Amino acid sequence: MAQKPSIPKGTRDFSPEEMAKRNYIFDTIKEVFTLHGFRQIETPSMENLSTLMGKYGEEGDKLLFKILNSGDFLKGVTDEQLIERNCPRLTSSLCEKGLRYDLTVPFARYVVQHRNELQFPFKRFQIQPVWRADRPQKGRYREFYQCDADVIGTDSLLNEIDLLEIIDEVFRRFGISITIKLNNRKVLSGIAEIIGEPERITDITVAIDKIDKIGIENVNAELLEKGISQEAVKQLQPILSLSGTNEEKLESLSKLLASSETGMKGIEELKYVIGGTIAAGIDARLELDVSLARGLNYYTGTIIEVKANDVQIGSITGGGRYDNLTGVFGMEGVSGVGISFGADRIFDVLNQLDLYPSEAKNTTKLMFVNFGEKESAASLKYAKRLRKAGISCEVYPENAKMKKQMGYANDNKIPFVAIVGENELEKGTIMLKDMQKGEQQELTVDEIAAKL
Amino acid sequence: MAQKPSIPKGTRDFSPEEMAKRNYIFDTIKEVFTLHGFRQIETPSMENLSTLMGKYGEEGDKLLFKILNSGDFLKGVTDEQLIERNCPRLTSSLCEKGLRYDLTVPFARYVVQHRNELQFPFKRFQIQPVWRADRPQKGRYREFYQCDADVIGTDSLLNEIDLLEIIDEVFRRFGISITIKLNNRKVLSGIAEIIGEPERITDITVAIDKIDKIGIENVNAELLEKGISQEAVKQLQPILSLSGTNEEKLESLSKLLASSETGMKGIEELKYVIGGTIAAGIDARLELDVSLARGLNYYTGTIIEVKANDVQIGSITGGGRYDNLTGVFGMEGVSGVGISFGADRIFDVLNQLDLYPSEAKNTTKLMFVNFGEKESAASLKYAKRLRKAGISCEVYPENAKMKKQMGYANDNKIPFVAIVGENELEKGTIMLKDMQKGEQQELTVDEIAAKL
Repeated sequence: MAQKPSIPKGTRDFSPEEMAKRNYIFDTIKEVFTLHGFRQIETPSMENLSTLMGKYGEEGDKLLFKILNSGDFLKGVTDEQLIERNCPRLTSSLCEKGLRYDLTVPFARYVVQHRNELQFPFKRFQIQPVWRADRPQKGRYREFYQCDADVIGTDSLLNEIDLLEIIDEVFRRFGISITIKLNNRKVLSGIAEIIGEPERITDITVAIDKIDKIGIENVNAELLEKGISQEAVKQLQPILSLSGTNEEKLESLSKLLASSETGMKGIEELKYVIGGTIAAGIDARLELDVSLARGLNYYTGTIIEVKANDVQIGSITGGGRYDNLTGVFGMEGVSGVGISFGADRIFDVLNQLDLYPSEAKNTTKLMFVNFGEKESAASLKYAKRLRKAGISCEVYPENAKMKKQMGYANDNKIPFVAIVGENELEKGTIMLKDMQKGEQQELTVDEIAAKL
Repeated sequence: MAQKPSIPKGTRDFSPEEMAKRNYIFDTIKEVFTLHGFRQIETPSMENLSTLMGKYGEEGDKLLFKILNSGDFLKGVTDEQLIERNCPRLTSSLCEKGLRYDLTVPFARYVVQHRNELQFPFKRFQIQPVWRADRPQKGRYREFYQCDADVIGTDSLLNEIDLLEIIDEVFRRFGISITIKLNNRKVLSGIAEIIGEPERITDITVAIDKIDKIGIENVNAELLEKGISQEAVKQLQPILSLSGTNEEKLESLSKLLASSETGMKGIEELKYVIGGTIAAGIDARLELDVSLARGLNYYTGTIIEVKANDVQIGSITGGGRYDNLTGVFGMEGVSGVGISFGADRIFDVLNQLDLYPSEAKNTTKLMFVNFGEKESAASLKYAKRLRKAGISCEVYPENAKMKKQMGYANDNKIPFVAIVGENELEKGTIMLKDMQKGEQQELTVDEIAAKL
């Protein structure tokens, strides 16, 4: 036999069992998005490289999968250029298109391209794969799904509350206990301001973002090393050791940031969002965390991150408010707020906690054993009747040995087997076998439809 | 403003309205596949080029989208090879991966790669995009979805009946009246045999496949031109002009092909499949059509093609039985039968006949007008209550002018608007406005949950 075929590293096949679980995840997220009035769009897998390049930093440009032009792809490249072997430069001659790297840039491109057809505010969601030529490792793939919801064209903080309710409802449905961490970029700006280092906000937040991992001492050392003054680091200490309830933290912050207009605006926003979300009623723990920074240069207001309470794993959802989604495509002033569910990590959490409902484990409910032509003809009719009642079922396609047929039902985790033999055929009944309990019961097709 | 961004030719953005319709199509097909015990798999968008190349003919190789290797993609290519500019040869050095061209080859690869984990028979379905570097034109895209269902590892004709029932049920749900055309490769072989030209089966079937388009006279001319003998063409005439019911056609064929064992086997199979499908009860018209050939070199038994009765459009679904799915990957003897729904054409047919149910047209059912902080806080709670009842709703995020808010509901085709003003807030009621009828009614949130 020829060499066994394989798939590119970092990519995955999904078996029926895995697909049932993945569908459960995507369907749940999609249903909650839809219940909240978000509307789905899809964009092409390929975008023009001119749309993608330069949007993800230099490293990101390298991680884009580029598609070789069709036909004579060397047309327009001179021999000299070829022999020079400058790969990045040659790429732009050889390739016009690349695979989507995330859903945000294609969304921004979509908004600009279709701005005359769109109504603002625009609440869109998008669930599609993205591709990155990253080095594959455990939990990191070259093809994976993102599940994004954004509201653009509105500054109202009701949108933040809406998105937090969505997060709460999605994880409530999954049965995953979560903590939603909240922060606000304006609070971070305020902190940098009051400690007298307003220009160093990036260094400061990058450092304090590491508190959970390396502890306060090391954060302080890093700040000093980066040239933040001793005095500023000292002033930072009460903020780094904020504790208590959200109300208490906000109270302390109000005093600490009193002299910063921006900081106080951030506190006001946090109060509104936290108050409104709790009033709307959520199950999740809501925790103000001033060390939360997440892609700071992108977010301008609320910052959101979700952790699972019972599993050690990174952030399983994140998001925040941004000011200028589409400026890079020449359309200014489109602000918005969005969240992104990490489907692969949620998949891992659900697996670890074994939280999948039984519907996500087996899709086919019943198999008719095949005893020959007459019996299978009757079974086909029964199957049609059951499907009308929404019951997934199949007739084993061959009159094979009983053991083989039962093995098939077993291997495919089909919970019920229906036996229509000569006897049952005469009486117009079906022997229904519960594969788990091992019990069997003689019923009519209508009784089975009602029972299952 | 910078140049308006665009997407690669032959690709599409899907707006919320289009997505709602597409989801309706895919969800319907998926639900019927699942009701019949088919189990979903997904394969990566990229396959190794060694998996894809040589599987679709020379033309197909050209139409594959190839992905440029990451990093130093010229490594391993000499200056001489570069300057030689042999693009097809260079491609294999520059690219290891390509985008999926169809779902059949990846499925075959999947079966071989996972054969130790699979149970046969294996009933799989797969709904994923495929990519072809074809010249784009009306109705032909470079990225489009295929919806395939196959049963492999069984020769039983019950599978054909199963698939025909699926086709019937899918189009019954869509409300599209269809004709399912059936043929059998063995009948075509029998025809070639009895007219004394068994080796010329491809030429013969390619010619008679055109009867509908060019008429019998031209088919005859083409056959003679291709070197089929006068005598053979004469013998072919009663077959080309077969008419009457399926039973009458089968009757005539039985006489004409009596001396061909293969032909008679084909007739027997057709009788079984047609008889069984009609006994199972279908709505679609079932029509034996000996001129149907479809990818002859691939199919070995039943051949299936579906036409819409009320719209002039090509085949909207097709399929058939094949003998050797996985031979190309070194695993012999895997036979099966499959069908493929043409989602883009179905989309066009549903649009032309305006057959989308209202659920596929609007997703959000109700919008709360925003009259300010107190009112919107109450609306958030009402919205939560309605979502619990499965009603998609949203609170307009800003206290904007009434005209703007109503315009939003209108533009997004939201059928109901809820008004919670000072008055309603006091009474604990909601004014529900039916946007289509223009009527309004004062109700409690529970009454609205029950009504919608």
